[in-house]
Amino acid sequence: MARIQDVARDAGVSISTVSNVLNGRAERMTRETLERVEAAIARLGFRPSQAARALKTGHMPIIGLLVPSIANPMYGSIAREVELVAQERHNYRVLLGNTYRSVEKEASFIDDLLSHGVRSVIVISSLTDEGHIEAALKRGMVVVSYDRRADADAKSRIDHVSVDNFKAGRIASSHLIAHGHKRLAFATAAGLTMSRRAKIAGFQDGAAGVATEVIEGRVGSEYGDSELVEVGRALAAQIARRGRTTRPTGVVAVNDMLGIGLIAGLREQGLRVPEDISVVGMDDMFLAPLISPAMTSVGMPLADMASTMVERVISRLADPQIPTAEFLFEPHLAQRQSVAAPPL
Amino acid sequence: MARIQDVARDAGVSISTVSNVLNGRAERMTRETLERVEAAIARLGFRPSQAARALKTGHMPIIGLLVPSIANPMYGSIAREVELVAQERHNYRVLLGNTYRSVEKEASFIDDLLSHGVRSVIVISSLTDEGHIEAALKRGMVVVSYDRRADADAKSRIDHVSVDNFKAGRIASSHLIAHGHKRLAFATAAGLTMSRRAKIAGFQDGAAGVATEVIEGRVGSEYGDSELVEVGRALAAQIARRGRTTRPTGVVAVNDMLGIGLIAGLREQGLRVPEDISVVGMDDMFLAPLISPAMTSVGMPLADMASTMVERVISRLADPQIPTAEFLFEPHLAQRQSVAAPPL
Repeated sequence: MARIQDVARDAGVSISTVSNVLNGRAERMTRETLERVEAAIARLGFRPSQAARALKTGHMPIIGLLVPSIANPMYGSIAREVELVAQERHNYRVLLGNTYRSVEKEASFIDDLLSHGVRSVIVISSLTDEGHIEAALKRGMVVVSYDRRADADAKSRIDHVSVDNFKAGRIASSHLIAHGHKRLAFATAAGLTMSRRAKIAGFQDGAAGVATEVIEGRVGSEYGDSELVEVGRALAAQIARRGRTTRPTGVVAVNDMLGIGLIAGLREQGLRVPEDISVVGMDDMFLAPLISPAMTSVGMPLADMASTMVERVISRLADPQIPTAEFLFEPHLAQRQSVAAPPL
Repeated sequence: MARIQDVARDAGVSISTVSNVLNGRAERMTRETLERVEAAIARLGFRPSQAARALKTGHMPIIGLLVPSIANPMYGSIAREVELVAQERHNYRVLLGNTYRSVEKEASFIDDLLSHGVRSVIVISSLTDEGHIEAALKRGMVVVSYDRRADADAKSRIDHVSVDNFKAGRIASSHLIAHGHKRLAFATAAGLTMSRRAKIAGFQDGAAGVATEVIEGRVGSEYGDSELVEVGRALAAQIARRGRTTRPTGVVAVNDMLGIGLIAGLREQGLRVPEDISVVGMDDMFLAPLISPAMTSVGMPLADMASTMVERVISRLADPQIPTAEFLFEPHLAQRQSVAAPPL
C-alpha cells in the first residue's frame, strides 16, 4: 500500500506539500507542483489513511472498550452491543482490552489508546481506585464508565451508565422474602467493587427483619470465565457443610456466573434447588434460562445501556463541554424455576 | 495532547523537519534548527504517537480480530487468549469486529483495518467464499485463518490454525457407537461452513454401519449468542415429535452452544438426557460441565491455538516471506454425564 512518503518521493516534493494537496491547501503552490502530486497519488493508488487523518484531527474513529475479561459471557454480550452501535451508527471500531480488574492493566491500556490516537474509552471496571481514570481525563480522553455510580460529592468529568444496583439487590431479597424465606445470604467474590457494595446494601434494605449474611469466595489471580463459576461452587460446598437449621434457605448471587456455579455446586453436594435452597442470580444473562433449574435473575436493559454509552462517547468527542450525566437504568425481575418456599 | 503540527508551529519549521528530527535524520539541518525543534518538543511535552509511527513503519501495533459474534462465549474465550498473548508478549492491542458470518461485514472490517494502518488480522470465519480475504492479501494484509483448512489445491498465502474437525466428528460418533447406539444424528445450523463440512464427514466416517442423518435448524438474521441455543431447542422439538422407534438415540451437536439448547429443549419436551437420548457437544467450552446433565464434549487446546495465531501474525509482519503453514491441533474427548447406552 502506498504511503504519503511514497507519493512525496514519486512527485519529488516534501511530505508536507503532499499533505497540503490532500487537505485542499494548494493556493500557494504552482499549478505544475499540484499536478505532479495529483498524478503521483493516482499512479500509486494512494488513499489517505485513518492514521494520517488521526494526526490531523487528533483522534482515530475507534472507541476503546475496557472489560474485566471478554471470556465472561456477560462482557461478551455488552461488547457485542457496543460494537454494533459504534459500527453501524457511527462507523467507529472497537479496540478491546482485558484488564482482570487490575489498575495497572487499566492504566496501561489507556496509555496505549492515547498513543494510538484513540481519544475515547468505555470503562467497565467498577474499581474503587480511579486515579488512572482522572489522569486519562487530564490527557484529553473521553471516558464513559459502566456499572458504577457517579461520586455524590465530586464534580465528575465522566458520564456514568449503570443499572440501579441498589434496587437490583432489593428486588432480589424482597422476592425471596415474598416466598417466605427467613435466612438469606448474599454470595459474592472477594473484592468490594462499587457495584457490589450497592447490590449488598440493596439486598440488606430489602431483607429488613430477617437474618442476612454476606458470604465471600476467594478468586485466583485472574478474573475470568470459569473463575466466578468456581467461586459459586466453593460457596455451595461451604453452605452444604453447615447444618440444615443454620444455613440460608435463600441465596442471592452477585451475578449469574456465580449463580450458575452455585446451582451446579449445590447439586453436586446433594442439595436440591429450589426445594432445599432458592437461588436468585443477577444480570439475567442469556444463560440463566438454559441451566437446570432455569435461574430466576434480576436483569437490565443491556442494549439500551450499550447504546447510551456509545452515544455519549460520540457526543462528547464532538463537544467536550456538554455537561456530564448519570444514566441509571431500571432493573427487572425475570422469574423462573430456582425460587420456591423454604423447606419446612 | 501536543501534535507534530504544534511542534512545527512552535519551532517555526515544517512538519517534515520535525519528522526528520524525530527519526534521527538531522544531518542536513543547522544546529540552531535542531535545538529549536528539540526545545519545542520538550516545551510541549510532545510524544510521537503510534499514529505517526504507523505512517512511518506502515503499520500500527494492533491485530484485527474478526469473530462471528463476541456474544458467543466460545469466541469470547478465544478473544481473551488472543488478547492475552498479543498484549503480554508483543505489546499489540486487539481491534475487534463482529461479522455475523457476512462476507460484506468481513470485507468492510478489513477495509477499515487497512485505513487504520492495521496490517494483520485473525479471521474466525470459516465462510466458503474467500474472495475478500484474497483482496486483503493483495493489499498487504497479514491474514491468519482460524477453524478452516488450507485448500489442498491452491497455494495459500494464509496461515491456517484449526482443530482437526474431521477427527473431532469421528471421535463424537465413535463414542456414541461404543455405547451401543444404532441411530445417530448430527445437529447443526443451516449454512455449510468449511468446519461444519469436516465435522459432518468425520461424524459419518466414525458411524459406518449404523443409520445417520444430518438435521439442520434455521438461523435468523444474526449469528449471535442465544441464536445457536434456540436452534438447538427447535431441533429438540423436531426430534421429540418423531416416534420413539424412528428418532435418533444419540445426537452430536455441531458446537456446545447448540448442544446446550438441545439438552434444555429435550428436557422441555419431556425427554431425559441421557436415558432417552445421548448428546455429545463440540468445543468443550467452560459451560459444558455446568449444565445439567454435565455435557460430554469434544474439546481442543484453545490457548495453544490462540498463541499460535498471534505468533504467526507477529512473525509474518516481521518477514512476509516465511512459508505459510497449516497448524492442525488434536481434539480430545471430555466425558461427562450426557452419554449412556440407548433405551431398550
